[in-house]
Amino acid sequence: MTEPKIDSRRLWDGHMAMAEIGPSPGGGTARLALTDFDREARHLFRRWAEEAGCAVRVDGIGNIFARREGEDPGHPPVMTGSHLDTQPLGGPFDGIYGVLAGLEVVRALNDAGIATRLPIEVVDWTDEEGARFGAGCLGSNVFAGRRALDNTLALTDAHGNTVRGELERIGYAGPKPVGGFPIDCFFEIHIEQGPILENEGIQVGAVEGAQASTGYWVTVTGEEGHAGTLPMALRRDAMHGSARMIDAVVNVAMDFDPHPVITVGHLRVRPNSRNTIPGQVTFSIDSRHPDNDILASAGAAMRAACETIAEDRGLELEIEQTSHRDSVVFDPGCVQTIRDAAAARGISCRDIYSGAGHDAINLSHVCPAGMIFVPCEKGVSHNEAENAKPEDLAAGAEVLLHAILARAGRA
Amino acid sequence: MTEPKIDSRRLWDGHMAMAEIGPSPGGGTARLALTDFDREARHLFRRWAEEAGCAVRVDGIGNIFARREGEDPGHPPVMTGSHLDTQPLGGPFDGIYGVLAGLEVVRALNDAGIATRLPIEVVDWTDEEGARFGAGCLGSNVFAGRRALDNTLALTDAHGNTVRGELERIGYAGPKPVGGFPIDCFFEIHIEQGPILENEGIQVGAVEGAQASTGYWVTVTGEEGHAGTLPMALRRDAMHGSARMIDAVVNVAMDFDPHPVITVGHLRVRPNSRNTIPGQVTFSIDSRHPDNDILASAGAAMRAACETIAEDRGLELEIEQTSHRDSVVFDPGCVQTIRDAAAARGISCRDIYSGAGHDAINLSHVCPAGMIFVPCEKGVSHNEAENAKPEDLAAGAEVLLHAILARAGRA
Repeated sequence: MTEPKIDSRRLWDGHMAMAEIGPSPGGGTARLALTDFDREARHLFRRWAEEAGCAVRVDGIGNIFARREGEDPGHPPVMTGSHLDTQPLGGPFDGIYGVLAGLEVVRALNDAGIATRLPIEVVDWTDEEGARFGAGCLGSNVFAGRRALDNTLALTDAHGNTVRGELERIGYAGPKPVGGFPIDCFFEIHIEQGPILENEGIQVGAVEGAQASTGYWVTVTGEEGHAGTLPMALRRDAMHGSARMIDAVVNVAMDFDPHPVITVGHLRVRPNSRNTIPGQVTFSIDSRHPDNDILASAGAAMRAACETIAEDRGLELEIEQTSHRDSVVFDPGCVQTIRDAAAARGISCRDIYSGAGHDAINLSHVCPAGMIFVPCEKGVSHNEAENAKPEDLAAGAEVLLHAILARAGRA
Repeated sequence: MTEPKIDSRRLWDGHMAMAEIGPSPGGGTARLALTDFDREARHLFRRWAEEAGCAVRVDGIGNIFARREGEDPGHPPVMTGSHLDTQPLGGPFDGIYGVLAGLEVVRALNDAGIATRLPIEVVDWTDEEGARFGAGCLGSNVFAGRRALDNTLALTDAHGNTVRGELERIGYAGPKPVGGFPIDCFFEIHIEQGPILENEGIQVGAVEGAQASTGYWVTVTGEEGHAGTLPMALRRDAMHGSARMIDAVVNVAMDFDPHPVITVGHLRVRPNSRNTIPGQVTFSIDSRHPDNDILASAGAAMRAACETIAEDRGLELEIEQTSHRDSVVFDPGCVQTIRDAAAARGISCRDIYSGAGHDAINLSHVCPAGMIFVPCEKGVSHNEAENAKPEDLAAGAEVLLHAILARAGRA
């Protein structure tokens, strides 16, 4: 029996070619969803998939499915994939690895002349990062029925462009419907985006589940005034109050064990002029923890801290919860398949928990799903310095290949 | 002898007409320097000045001089004026009042058929607010020889447009040189932009001097990372550190008596994405105090506070001083002329200190200068809600008229 083999060089070169599409100033990748760069990356993936013999289709939210037919075309496919969009200052691996590793599995099966019983589909999910239209995982959310299609198509970016308009503009508004067909299972492979695997010298993580996550917008309203004339005692300075709130909100993480992760990543000041006391500040809070109840308690503590400061400073406060995802436990069968594939290939593996949101979390609501992590340099991600080792990417793809083969079956 | 009389209604209507040029969303004025709106306001002022019989000229930095000739054309003029540009979210009085009150003085003299011995010039100084090109009082600074013309013309806005290019675009790049001719004296009338006159029920302030002022840019550099995966203990969160610094910097004001005023008005976050730990934050500090030495001490305290926090949080820190103005004492003769004019008209007057920067401060370095303040509602300025009473504006203009007459002399 021929043994399929991951081509480490081909996998790495694919990442480097993709990274040339939307290079960022500091040597990373800046490829926001549904931009011209995203179009170019999608075109390249489609071309590679077609060259590998796949049939490519696009759905109504722009998700791209590259299908390697199975001996039994009527059977639900084994699906794998991730996303080609990046953060405003991102790297070449976050998401891209999951798409290109899926493609490498198809190529490796082709090279070894192996047919499978079940079809295999490699997917590029639309706008996982959520850096442009104010919400993330758009493609997989709609696919899994967790967001309405029309509502998602109507989301706008900072310039008023809609998802619908941008999909049409770049030529990736496929025919409806989105989702609604059976899937055998979904595997997503991804860089860890944290330091655990690298610190422990382990090549693969079998992801047991993902953290709960809650997002907020906080709006602090005071009163604008002249920076040179309004005495300190009479000020209602929205920036000063917000600074205290941000410090307090981040510090809430230290009150729980294990710590949740709490991030204030986005902030807008109005009018944002150096000689005017800010009248309004809006900032985001991103909070995550494996335990739903602890996360809710942290949310209440953050809210209370902001309210105390607002009252003390005479500021108006509005806190809007903009997103929430309960913690997710992946399908134990899928997780075991991953552990077994690693063990069979002699690749070091440990169980791990995901801190980030991923498309696989949405898929876990409509089919058995699992994730594979590989180390990335210093755990750095969402950063232009994001990096990973070719041999770790290849080892992870090897595990993905054998997990997929275990589910799809040799014909 | 005919008595000249300020036309309160005409003065008020002029403000309302100007306020229609560049209306802001919240009912104020948004007329940044050298925009299409600024051009329109300049055109209107020029037309009104010419209708009042003035000869209008423009200099190389776009300052507009409307001259009412004197019996002795060779004598240095009595000058008055302020600026027509506004903050991004400003009101209809800050600066505009100083230009329109000067014009009203000319009209009142015309109506009463009064010639003066000295010429009178009403000036619109270019870009006082400094909200677009990163520095303020451009026109009066260059006029007084306190900024180089070429360097000022080369300043750029956030879109890379230069002062030179924008002056040419709106048709207000006059012939060089700028300044360099003798001036008898300069009076500027302005809303107080603080609460003192209103609180005390006094109609006019004779401004004795202006506070010292120092501006800084603070850049805090940490490391970007994924909001969901990087443990709190491993973060170098530039936003969290900056929040602590902003709180500490503003609190420094409380350590000195009387308090300096300290404002963090402008802030930029990089990459400003809600699910990325900020890698860099840049913020402005505006600090002012009547005493140069106390302001320097406050500057040192702010720097020390930021350094302590940066060290504690493992962040890199850069503090750049971007502007400094020593405190200014206005010409005692000009101040006395203002006090006398108010007393002669039975208008309540008190001595006052300016918290804000004004074009008159620059002029005080090249000629005797003084300022007149009038109350504004709740002391609010640099705010769309900025407001003033027609009768206060008229009373101030009355004092300006008689101060100018005292210097220019009846022919």
